[in-house]
Amino acid sequence: MMTDPVITTLNEALAQAAAEVEQALDDLLPMPEGPESRLVDAMRYAVLGGGKRMRAFMVMETASLFGVDRRCSARTAAAVEMLHAYSLVHDDLPAMDDDDLRRGKPSTHKAFDEATAILAGDALQTRAFEVLAEPDTHSNAEARCELIRAFAHASGAAGMVGGQMIDIVSEGRELTAEQIGRLQALKTGRLIQFSAEAGAILGRANPMQRHLLLSYGRDVGAAFQIADDILDVEGTAEDVGKATGKDAAAGKATLVAVLGLERARAQADALSAQAAHHLDSFGEKAQHLRSLAALVVARKS
Amino acid sequence: MMTDPVITTLNEALAQAAAEVEQALDDLLPMPEGPESRLVDAMRYAVLGGGKRMRAFMVMETASLFGVDRRCSARTAAAVEMLHAYSLVHDDLPAMDDDDLRRGKPSTHKAFDEATAILAGDALQTRAFEVLAEPDTHSNAEARCELIRAFAHASGAAGMVGGQMIDIVSEGRELTAEQIGRLQALKTGRLIQFSAEAGAILGRANPMQRHLLLSYGRDVGAAFQIADDILDVEGTAEDVGKATGKDAAAGKATLVAVLGLERARAQADALSAQAAHHLDSFGEKAQHLRSLAALVVARKS
Repeated sequence: MMTDPVITTLNEALAQAAAEVEQALDDLLPMPEGPESRLVDAMRYAVLGGGKRMRAFMVMETASLFGVDRRCSARTAAAVEMLHAYSLVHDDLPAMDDDDLRRGKPSTHKAFDEATAILAGDALQTRAFEVLAEPDTHSNAEARCELIRAFAHASGAAGMVGGQMIDIVSEGRELTAEQIGRLQALKTGRLIQFSAEAGAILGRANPMQRHLLLSYGRDVGAAFQIADDILDVEGTAEDVGKATGKDAAAGKATLVAVLGLERARAQADALSAQAAHHLDSFGEKAQHLRSLAALVVARKS
Repeated sequence: MMTDPVITTLNEALAQAAAEVEQALDDLLPMPEGPESRLVDAMRYAVLGGGKRMRAFMVMETASLFGVDRRCSARTAAAVEMLHAYSLVHDDLPAMDDDDLRRGKPSTHKAFDEATAILAGDALQTRAFEVLAEPDTHSNAEARCELIRAFAHASGAAGMVGGQMIDIVSEGRELTAEQIGRLQALKTGRLIQFSAEAGAILGRANPMQRHLLLSYGRDVGAAFQIADDILDVEGTAEDVGKATGKDAAAGKATLVAVLGLERARAQADALSAQAAHHLDSFGEKAQHLRSLAALVVARKS
């Protein structure tokens, strides 16, 4: 239970950012007329009204360090959430992880059908890039292109999708802790890392500031993933909102399996502390981001 | 058989552009080390060594009207081909059109597996946007962002993917000629239209020139789709390189089914002539593009 006053403040800030990104998503995905409305319906189903919006929060908080207009950072955050949602929609497909449940409700292919889910994921990815390219996201086109490049690098073959491929190829194989770390860095880490870097790009930060936020994102992402694996072992489906114990059942390699619970937890805590440390030079303004680093390893869902 | 000297010249120009875009694709999709190489392998399988490269040719020819560096237009053409290839990979999946054959060889999900095909399609889309955002594609970031916006609009929910959704929703239903025209304009027309518009964006053309090329692309795209439907009725699988007669078997509405062969052919010819007419003000430089408009309705595969 989060009764610590710092965490309460963080939860308020998380709720505030979630509300802003929810509004941005709603605005950015208007329902069309005609039979293609089914597609947008599925896109909205997949991305609206769910999730902790941690990635969105990181975009908005890192952007706020540089005084970026919150409407601009909310658009960028919405693009990240669209990208994340598309990856979940495709991940849940029968040919992939075959998950019927996502955030406590039917996965997109169960609520609609497989073809619609494939297309909705595809179009969410497209829309994410489109939003970043629009002038409302940043007045400077160089910044928008830089945002798109970093976003694509984090989410494509050299990032998230590459990590999903490694995950599939590795199923049933024994991996070393290093190999698992790399898999997770690509599969979930890169997009979380981008979420922290995005604020620096939007804020035209200097290279050192950008590097520090990128490092923060990298460590928070790694800590988050270990915490996720711990939850998969310890949590109940009710708490987590999706099936648990699946990693072990699927023979998926996790750091918990290789290191054991205690050492995995210690590593997550060390990464969380290290993440906060990267923020030292940002002072008081970065307090929410520090609290977030603590929250990701303390969360129960 | 194409023995007309104009068409022979066109075929040479098509082959030249295809070779350039093939090289660009090869350069833009280097094989990584590690288990994710399977993903890039599938991406390369899907996009390299196949197809007429009509979209690529349109990008390169419209760009050449404005003297754009061919390395820049080849990168843009490669991005369009990646996007097109991703759409084919996902379209061929069992949950979609369930096609085992593509360009005379096994579809990506048959050559690899379904999960790999889903991911390869996803990562091809990502890479396409990444390539457009890179400075090598255009020195001006405003032009790159404009390219990305037009590309996303053509390929997302308001374009290609929206058209695929309409196609699925409409299966087995009777559509009017107007509804079929709209379906096809979205599903295949928008990306072909973008391919013609791309040269104008790369060349920083004036709004009238851009409008003329966009109109050319729209009409070529519409003519191409009708010719495709005619081939599906008349062609053999050997000529076309994929299963034929599938539209009728799947109960898919085509203009051929609604208008009959003769009227459909007349409409394709009229669109082809109209497409060429949009190029009047570009003079001799646009000859290949005019020949292409003639070729799309004369092709046998």
